[in-house]
Amino acid sequence: MAEGAFSPAVETPDLTAQLRFLVEADRLKAVLRASRLCDGSRFENSAEHSWHAALYALTLAGQAGSGVQIDRVIRMLLLHDLVEIDAGDTPIHLDLDPALQEAAEQAAADRLFGLLPAEQGAEFRALWDEFEAAESADAVFAKSLDRVVPLLQNLANDGGSWVDYDVRWSQIVTRVGDKVARGAPDLWTHVAGLVRPWFAARGRDDLA
Amino acid sequence: MAEGAFSPAVETPDLTAQLRFLVEADRLKAVLRASRLCDGSRFENSAEHSWHAALYALTLAGQAGSGVQIDRVIRMLLLHDLVEIDAGDTPIHLDLDPALQEAAEQAAADRLFGLLPAEQGAEFRALWDEFEAAESADAVFAKSLDRVVPLLQNLANDGGSWVDYDVRWSQIVTRVGDKVARGAPDLWTHVAGLVRPWFAARGRDDLA
Ligand SMILES: [Ca+2]
Repeated sequence: MAEGAFSPAVETPDLTAQLRFLVEADRLKAVLRASRLCDGSRFENSAEHSWHAALYALTLAGQAGSGVQIDRVIRMLLLHDLVEIDAGDTPIHLDLDPALQEAAEQAAADRLFGLLPAEQGAEFRALWDEFEAAESADAVFAKSLDRVVPLLQNLANDGGSWVDYDVRWSQIVTRVGDKVARGAPDLWTHVAGLVRPWFAARGRDDLA
Repeated sequence: MAEGAFSPAVETPDLTAQLRFLVEADRLKAVLRASRLCDGSRFENSAEHSWHAALYALTLAGQAGSGVQIDRVIRMLLLHDLVEIDAGDTPIHLDLDPALQEAAEQAAADRLFGLLPAEQGAEFRALWDEFEAAESADAVFAKSLDRVVPLLQNLANDGGSWVDYDVRWSQIVTRVGDKVARGAPDLWTHVAGLVRPWFAARGRDDLA
């Protein structure tokens, strides 16, 4: 658009800033997670995981409690891992200093959402903050899905990160199950029924 | 849930079918596209591309014409490439038989959406059909974004698939630009201003 032209009737967001943000977001495709694809062929990255988690939300919307707005959940899941571009992924079965990790993620959120036009950056940041706080109904459901996805992957590829990190069933219950159950109790009942036998069959069910 | 129990107040979708669909969807992470990551390090897959396209929709919502529902656009983009699990990606700069490709995609849609409970499968299928038809305002905008994403990637990694397929500027205009402009005219003006100089500088601007 020629400089000095009148603003059109529609919004004129700062496309340069938005495209810079979108190109920077591409780097999430290079952040590797602890979980492997369902076929076990390689570790997955946080961008494809974000797509998968959003697809879980779309597909499992019926598992959400009343008051949950699925499209807000999907938006949260599209944004939820962007901070890993700077801060990296935090495998839940690895003991890292949570304060250090949180500081790194806050700095990453400042930088990444700061690439956007101010109002939009604040809006995306608020959605990410809400996800992180895990208090609103939308965020609790989003967290449930984020946690449940790798369970299905590990089950499909015969253990995946459960084997890598020598995980017991009691750890799944406290680190994953309680969080899945908080937002999606029937989903947790169902998935626990699929996953617990894997642990039992390998002498890893320490709650039996 | 015990067999014969009353249905609870909330929906009781067929979780077994839904989880089978979601595990099958994981295979989209293994479908490679013609485009490379912005850093040029590798080809991207259709799952991470789907995430990126949905993030484009969320970020560039201000470019949509009135009447476009961004959350429907996002849903479309989450689903739009699933058929590639069976039918593969179709690089736009490669001449394939469109009738053969469409038949393969229709069969893929039958199989993949057919994994879901019937009502939900029909709902997802309708959304994908709408995207493919490219007639509704939501679908036209979704298609604009799907086409614009690789332009930014190729520009970032010094040509990418434009070099691989020996592409000229006129081909970008007819195969990409016209479609981007249909749903997002200001976005096309802006991106053309970024991309055309790349072609001009390499003697590939055949409309100059
Ligand atoms: Ca495609």
